[in-house]
Amino acid sequence: MHILQLKKDDGRDLTLYSRRPIDPTLTAPSPNRDPLVANPHLRWHPLRGEWITYASYRQGRTFMPPPEYNPLAPTTDPENPTELPAGDYDVAVFDNQFPSLSLASHNPPQTIVNTLPANGSCEVVVFTEDAGATLATLPLSHLELLFQVWADRTRVLGSKPEIQFVLPFENKGVEVGVTLHHPHGQIYAYPFVPPVPKQMNAQELAHLKETGQPLLQELIRAEIASGERILYRGEHAVAFLPAWARYPYEVWVAPIRRVKDFGCLLPEVRADLARALKTTLLKYDGMWQRSFPYLMAWYQAPQDGEQHPESHLHAEFFPPYRTRDRLKYLAGTELAAGMFANDALPEDKAKDLQAVIVDVES
Amino acid sequence: MHILQLKKDDGRDLTLYSRRPIDPTLTAPSPNRDPLVANPHLRWHPLRGEWITYASYRQGRTFMPPPEYNPLAPTTDPENPTELPAGDYDVAVFDNQFPSLSLASHNPPQTIVNTLPANGSCEVVVFTEDAGATLATLPLSHLELLFQVWADRTRVLGSKPEIQFVLPFENKGVEVGVTLHHPHGQIYAYPFVPPVPKQMNAQELAHLKETGQPLLQELIRAEIASGERILYRGEHAVAFLPAWARYPYEVWVAPIRRVKDFGCLLPEVRADLARALKTTLLKYDGMWQRSFPYLMAWYQAPQDGEQHPESHLHAEFFPPYRTRDRLKYLAGTELAAGMFANDALPEDKAKDLQAVIVDVES
Repeated sequence: MHILQLKKDDGRDLTLYSRRPIDPTLTAPSPNRDPLVANPHLRWHPLRGEWITYASYRQGRTFMPPPEYNPLAPTTDPENPTELPAGDYDVAVFDNQFPSLSLASHNPPQTIVNTLPANGSCEVVVFTEDAGATLATLPLSHLELLFQVWADRTRVLGSKPEIQFVLPFENKGVEVGVTLHHPHGQIYAYPFVPPVPKQMNAQELAHLKETGQPLLQELIRAEIASGERILYRGEHAVAFLPAWARYPYEVWVAPIRRVKDFGCLLPEVRADLARALKTTLLKYDGMWQRSFPYLMAWYQAPQDGEQHPESHLHAEFFPPYRTRDRLKYLAGTELAAGMFANDALPEDKAKDLQAVIVDVES
Repeated sequence: MHILQLKKDDGRDLTLYSRRPIDPTLTAPSPNRDPLVANPHLRWHPLRGEWITYASYRQGRTFMPPPEYNPLAPTTDPENPTELPAGDYDVAVFDNQFPSLSLASHNPPQTIVNTLPANGSCEVVVFTEDAGATLATLPLSHLELLFQVWADRTRVLGSKPEIQFVLPFENKGVEVGVTLHHPHGQIYAYPFVPPVPKQMNAQELAHLKETGQPLLQELIRAEIASGERILYRGEHAVAFLPAWARYPYEVWVAPIRRVKDFGCLLPEVRADLARALKTTLLKYDGMWQRSFPYLMAWYQAPQDGEQHPESHLHAEFFPPYRTRDRLKYLAGTELAAGMFANDALPEDKAKDLQAVIVDVES
């Protein structure tokens, strides 16, 4: 993997990644002309016992681009610079212009609950220069590179003393609020382990202590033995609708043997994980013959210097559709009580996706 | 409060509530002609440590009503019965035809994770016979009656040995997935205390043990002392945007002095709570001069026979809009990490709602 580290005039970092050497004379454009002012803060929610982040400047953007302007495409018109230079590279990562978390945060306002600077980082990951591609259409070697990029970002961000947890994710589709269709994801680096992965790690650790077995590895073996909900089963990686799915078309993608994070993936496991991911993405798009929206999140071990023998790297997909033309809204029981109601069995939804024939070599 | 208890032919309960005597000869219609088959089940999510409920028959509804058919209106055409009889009453409560939880649940399927019958109840609460009304347009005495109805349902459901927690809520607006515009809410009665109220109760209990003070009562006093985010302040009740809001227009409505549930509300507190609620609803609708969508949830103490000196009855509103024309989507950080990012300060959003003048006597 080739890497070129650049700095934008507004102070933000840009890192280019490629399977081929990168022209070292490339420079980093920015649609933003002034130095960046990012000062989000955290407030403590006393009844939920969790931090909320506030970044009110996010509504204050003044830049008015032409309608065809795509800030994630390589710059073609120097009068209207995008976030990225023209040149040959595969994946680009840069600091979000309107971050919810920033290492530059300082002096949080005082209020009736505890506040803190919202230390952390929010990065944008542009998956490819091709605005018309999706993750599903990228070749396997490109997906493998993306896993290496996520490993590198996890290492870079996780090595900062303020950072405890690194979450790569992709929001895809207007149904989940995405207005920019250039294929991209985000990385949030948190100053604490957030509630969901914290709970996961606690469950995994309790199981490990009780049984000596990593929880998700054991569940994956049970899913493979059952076979009923499997979408992909390779030598090293698997994709399946879990028996405990909260969303009708929820899919998990994971190495079969426990690996704690992207940085620990062996090349042959990474390659098979790319096949498992691409199989899932192609089945999603193939099922209704249209681009399938989702939230995809990749969970890995906290970056707190501990070994985490309980953590098992995996992706979870939360798709907003429950049938071809009906969205699953999160409402009373999900949002107010925290209990999900799924009106479909994963065994049944698995059949829909199992029936889609795909060619990951394409 | 007058009550008439009825039974539908399909076995479901219907209870009518009114400020006036109810004609005892009323009978309970049903759009459903066959006995109801409701057999949802629970599955354990091993990594989140929570139960998911599955009710796959929810997609199997065969009833094809005429387009103008409103199942929540009083029946006018006996050939097309609705859920409710014609007659004079204020509020009606009946068992949901497609419940996510049912006391009739039995023999859950076996799979690779633990399963249980999804014991519990899902009720529909029709707020008024008037299809064109909303909670905001109902008179104060009608809202007071609704609080009494919720108290009665909490008592009836909570007295069943299977039930541990009763949650009244309203999903309002197409933006939160509601297709039926007749004013109505729902009640979920759970066989356990679900994750969100469980966490709340743990936080409240820890604070009570540490300080001797109920947590929310203390926070409400601080909100009143600050005044910055208050929408309504009566002798007994308050409405405010909490300093720890997760949604831009999040509002909490509560008695000022701790009351653990609807059943414990004194008449004068109930009356003031109705004013606090109606003030909030009218301000919401007045702000953009259009019906304001939201999820409204009422949290009260678990129904487990304990005293719960930590629990403080209150409503939380989760509105989907962050500005007049922009929805707040729950995406990567909210759903995958569980950390909310709010791009507005509650102090600022409070100004928008404080500026709306309302008349709760109307």
